[in-house]
Amino acid sequence: MSPDNRLQELRAQIDQINMQILDLLNQRASIASDIGKIQSELGTTFYDPEREAVMLEALQQANNGPFSNETIQALFREIFRATLALEESEARAKIRVQRKTPTERTIITLPDGTEIGNSVFQVISGPCAVESMEQMDTVAAEMAKRGVRILRGMGYKPRSSPYDFQGLGVPGLQIARQVANKYDMFITSEVLDMSLLPMMSEYVDIFWVGARNMQNSFLLRALGKVRQPVILKRSFSATLKELIYAAEYIVSSGNPNVILMERGVRTFEQWTRNTLDISAVPLLKMETHLPVIVDISHSAGRRDIAVPLAKAAKAVGADGLMVEVHPNPPVAMSDAKQQLDIAEFHQLMDALNG
Amino acid sequence: MSPDNRLQELRAQIDQINMQILDLLNQRASIASDIGKIQSELGTTFYDPEREAVMLEALQQANNGPFSNETIQALFREIFRATLALEESEARAKIRVQRKTPTERTIITLPDGTEIGNSVFQVISGPCAVESMEQMDTVAAEMAKRGVRILRGMGYKPRSSPYDFQGLGVPGLQIARQVANKYDMFITSEVLDMSLLPMMSEYVDIFWVGARNMQNSFLLRALGKVRQPVILKRSFSATLKELIYAAEYIVSSGNPNVILMERGVRTFEQWTRNTLDISAVPLLKMETHLPVIVDISHSAGRRDIAVPLAKAAKAVGADGLMVEVHPNPPVAMSDAKQQLDIAEFHQLMDALNG
Amino acid sequence: MSPDNRLQELRAQIDQINMQILDLLNQRASIASDIGKIQSELGTTFYDPEREAVMLEALQQANNGPFSNETIQALFREIFRATLALEESEARAKIRVQRKTPTERTIITLPDGTEIGNSVFQVISGPCAVESMEQMDTVAAEMAKRGVRILRGMGYKPRSSPYDFQGLGVPGLQIARQVANKYDMFITSEVLDMSLLPMMSEYVDIFWVGARNMQNSFLLRALGKVRQPVILKRSFSATLKELIYAAEYIVSSGNPNVILMERGVRTFEQWTRNTLDISAVPLLKMETHLPVIVDISHSAGRRDIAVPLAKAAKAVGADGLMVEVHPNPPVAMSDAKQQLDIAEFHQLMDALNG
Amino acid sequence: MSPDNRLQELRAQIDQINMQILDLLNQRASIASDIGKIQSELGTTFYDPEREAVMLEALQQANNGPFSNETIQALFREIFRATLALEESEARAKIRVQRKTPTERTIITLPDGTEIGNSVFQVISGPCAVESMEQMDTVAAEMAKRGVRILRGMGYKPRSSPYDFQGLGVPGLQIARQVANKYDMFITSEVLDMSLLPMMSEYVDIFWVGARNMQNSFLLRALGKVRQPVILKRSFSATLKELIYAAEYIVSSGNPNVILMERGVRTFEQWTRNTLDISAVPLLKMETHLPVIVDISHSAGRRDIAVPLAKAAKAVGADGLMVEVHPNPPVAMSDAKQQLDIAEFHQLMDALNG
Repeated sequence: MSPDNRLQELRAQIDQINMQILDLLNQRASIASDIGKIQSELGTTFYDPEREAVMLEALQQANNGPFSNETIQALFREIFRATLALEESEARAKIRVQRKTPTERTIITLPDGTEIGNSVFQVISGPCAVESMEQMDTVAAEMAKRGVRILRGMGYKPRSSPYDFQGLGVPGLQIARQVANKYDMFITSEVLDMSLLPMMSEYVDIFWVGARNMQNSFLLRALGKVRQPVILKRSFSATLKELIYAAEYIVSSGNPNVILMERGVRTFEQWTRNTLDISAVPLLKMETHLPVIVDISHSAGRRDIAVPLAKAAKAVGADGLMVEVHPNPPVAMSDAKQQLDIAEFHQLMDALNG
Repeated sequence: MSPDNRLQELRAQIDQINMQILDLLNQRASIASDIGKIQSELGTTFYDPEREAVMLEALQQANNGPFSNETIQALFREIFRATLALEESEARAKIRVQRKTPTERTIITLPDGTEIGNSVFQVISGPCAVESMEQMDTVAAEMAKRGVRILRGMGYKPRSSPYDFQGLGVPGLQIARQVANKYDMFITSEVLDMSLLPMMSEYVDIFWVGARNMQNSFLLRALGKVRQPVILKRSFSATLKELIYAAEYIVSSGNPNVILMERGVRTFEQWTRNTLDISAVPLLKMETHLPVIVDISHSAGRRDIAVPLAKAAKAVGADGLMVEVHPNPPVAMSDAKQQLDIAEFHQLMDALNG
Repeated sequence: MSPDNRLQELRAQIDQINMQILDLLNQRASIASDIGKIQSELGTTFYDPEREAVMLEALQQANNGPFSNETIQALFREIFRATLALEESEARAKIRVQRKTPTERTIITLPDGTEIGNSVFQVISGPCAVESMEQMDTVAAEMAKRGVRILRGMGYKPRSSPYDFQGLGVPGLQIARQVANKYDMFITSEVLDMSLLPMMSEYVDIFWVGARNMQNSFLLRALGKVRQPVILKRSFSATLKELIYAAEYIVSSGNPNVILMERGVRTFEQWTRNTLDISAVPLLKMETHLPVIVDISHSAGRRDIAVPLAKAAKAVGADGLMVEVHPNPPVAMSDAKQQLDIAEFHQLMDALNG
Repeated sequence: MSPDNRLQELRAQIDQINMQILDLLNQRASIASDIGKIQSELGTTFYDPEREAVMLEALQQANNGPFSNETIQALFREIFRATLALEESEARAKIRVQRKTPTERTIITLPDGTEIGNSVFQVISGPCAVESMEQMDTVAAEMAKRGVRILRGMGYKPRSSPYDFQGLGVPGLQIARQVANKYDMFITSEVLDMSLLPMMSEYVDIFWVGARNMQNSFLLRALGKVRQPVILKRSFSATLKELIYAAEYIVSSGNPNVILMERGVRTFEQWTRNTLDISAVPLLKMETHLPVIVDISHSAGRRDIAVPLAKAAKAVGADGLMVEVHPNPPVAMSDAKQQLDIAEFHQLMDALNG
């Protein structure tokens, strides 16, 4: 027989074995599914590492090659994992924030009908921190001219050093609220600890969780109980998977209105404060149904590239952006290098609308 | 005149100008120090960006080159910064955790006289999470044979997914306490939220703050009020400076007994869960007077290099290490890949004592 | 005198000292400039660390505080550095690739008038590697329909493993040339070693330097001697400053036609092969006058986000992009996951023109 | 039947199916192995993506669940990969640098019997770059007192900027050779391009490949043809797997004497120039049989932690280290901050021997 004919014959044998394996895998999955149902009734967890260890041991005892024990172990681990995934997906809804169909999306509607996650590209703006009534009013007045509806108003600032300005606290929130009311805007403000939630709920329309708190599970669960939407910022070095799970903490605790925010990750590059991970936007929109926005101030840490980054954020499919604006950035009590001044804010808005 | 003579003459002029600048800088610093004293009395902050902006503007108006305005601005910014540093260091003690002399060190003494930060290399050990009395007892019994005094006992586990095992809670802490009492050991356990502190204080001898909470300023300040020492883990991507400031939150709130822990940082390398930053140990010991320990389990995320990493941690000057040990790692409810079994634990202890 | 009056008086003194320091700094710079001229004549370098050490020593001897010796040393180092920069900038032109005015830009003109770096957003496309005449022809035919003028045609592929497909070599280049001629296109191909330049010059219209060779100074200098433009890819973990210096190696060796390419940097994120550093585009365009393009295939390492990344690249101000297209990606000899198929290529072009 | 009995029964069914799948997998592997032999004879490659695509398509057509097509595809991809690995390992020796048994190791013997990779911890030392005969002689004389046998002697320095000091070239190598001969030492020097190999072979006893050239496949292959051992430095952001493959380029080209060097990777941390990845040492020693050394100068980029890092390198199991020593570091033409002075060199040697 020619080598080519021999090859063809051997390949036909492989094809046949493939089908037998396929059949056995699905039989195995059906039985595992039944086991899962019983476990659900018994209230035990699906994952049973001791049982897996026993099965792997038996397979290794029975294995005569040519596959090595290591390979057999690796292949069956994959089969176990696939089976486990199947059981879990049957017993409970999948991860809630995960997109089930390409068109599924969460649109968050604010009291006056303003939507986040729909067709309008939402700009969220304002100074880094509330410093004074005058400062907030100046910025809000300019924002109002451009139709911006959501005002940053931080009363509590997370700082690396205990000796840095930590925010004005309640008086800051009161200023923010007053200014927002005057211009008919919504206030978004960072919450640093769950103990602040009852008080802050009086002033804040949209909570946000900062990068340092992205995996503070107590805070996340507590935010699952509030009525306000929550912006969840990606931590400095969180993977997208971790960000999605953090969102799941909030949503699975009862609050479906979560907005994901990409704000740059830590890398070796020194010309930007962080490296804006623009690919995160389409990936998060593919994997979840949540709105995704971009913080162009903290990612770059410099104002001179704010306009191109804003255009990129819009083009890549983000639902909006956050940008810091201050009447007089050089004298700001924090983030002086990255806040836009009023003229730059208008340039940015022009660029986005152009 | 020969070029060489001419060079010498010009250099002599430079030398003279250097001395004049030196004199003016110190005069300037003295005056600034007086200003600082008045500001301290007035209760205003030293940093006054508006005043700096005015001075820079004046300098640029007066500048006729050859230095460009940018260069003049950069140089004077350095002078401002140096002056500010001087004022701050005069008005209040420097960063408390910072080492003032090469021999200054914090030694933490536990109730029975066990010391952390002194000559003994302390091993902290135990399972990742408390799973059962049997599990804890088995491990503690082996630890006791090797003179290990501090037992890990997590009741609350921070997890990326809300669906992963989150710890046994209070019953877990009760088991840990009971086992520790039996073997005359101390319990260290992670605190996830400041609301847990009163309850946990009944069970726990040494608190630890996990990587995800390193910059949770509310938790850090609350830990400044407890009587127990605190282990502070470096966050996945925190700089050493940020870790030091996080420790300062605790110490400046009243608790001097902080132990810093290096536990690996996030990089692109995939063969380890994190990259152990071994240089962090000598740098933290140089910059602060606090004890520094190394977590060899979470940094590597694999048990097969635990022995060499432990030896490196000891050799580099760490005051101890933390390592996860489980009676049966493959069936552990978390971190199965990185927990040592009993035999491996004894090999590790042999290697450290060898 | 009231504290406020006293403050004002002290500040006036500071203002006066500032002016005296300013004056001395500029005097010092003038003298240093004269020294620089003599050194230029003598052919010695400006940087003279021994002389600096002597000056610092003298300053420390003379220093009576309140500034510490360390602070004085730091301040004078800044002054030395500023002076050195001044001397260097006077003696020779600054970094050639650095933008001198906001409007300066290098526009690269190909033989038929096609421009890179001007108003048209250039798409560079083609398979990862040349595999066959058929493969190249199929892709080029589709590219031609969309007016794409520059065809990727790799004869030599850099691979991590010596056992991976390394390219067809000369026959691959011949195929690429033939197909390019048929469709009136230009060929761009990676050069792996300077010894290949004479041979490759017969086939290639635009050379490119891969990420692994970005700092191969022998290759860079050799590319300074060829007549073709050069695309310089940023290395996996090169800072933007290093990329600019690498370009300077080429330009200072005689070839002004360099195109910078951002292609993603290495981070901890695992859902993309690399993290596209979109901020690099506006920063490189601000710092240099060179065209900047984006590789959307190697940055993401996945084809499903090619369209949003392409739109982001255009919106952020890039002069073009490179994208891999293959008639049948799943059977490609390399980069199967990231190459677009023909339909996806047309969607991309539609999206860019939409 | 009770749920527990039912569970047991279903588990017995699973066990049986496991064994059937095991049997089929091994049958499949045997046939694939036969196919591999025929392919070897025909000279075709084992990897046949088109054939895989056809098999996956057939499996999806036949799949009726409960496993989804995606899961079936993923599981069979694992099976394909395992089979391919088996075929490849049968047809040719595995990766040559990979350790086959726990005791296998490459010991490199220099002409006078000095060994690298055996029991002696080898210190490689000398200035960053050759600057003068005096400088080299001073350092070598001190090294000789401590029994150090291998002298750094760079004639060609890779620099980020074309305007930085690039080394003395041939005269530098001549100085290095002369000094080495005087003190009966070996010279190690970096080779920047394969065109330099014939000339450098006259002066150099051990070549080294710098981080910037780790994936320069032309240089690596050329080093496979020289008689001298080669030190291969890990690139700034190379994974360990990539480093191993780079070594394989050299070894598979004919030179078995490769020494791997860890020299730090790029991270966000700013207090060190790079982050020394100490875990790389035990991992490389586990995965390969090659000697592994650590560069403590370039990793830290600062001399004040050289002693603890040297001790850590030795403790973690490295076969040696490289450290830069200069008679007068502040006036060195490069790397002034990281070179030890003579006194510090002796402290380091004391610490290593203590």
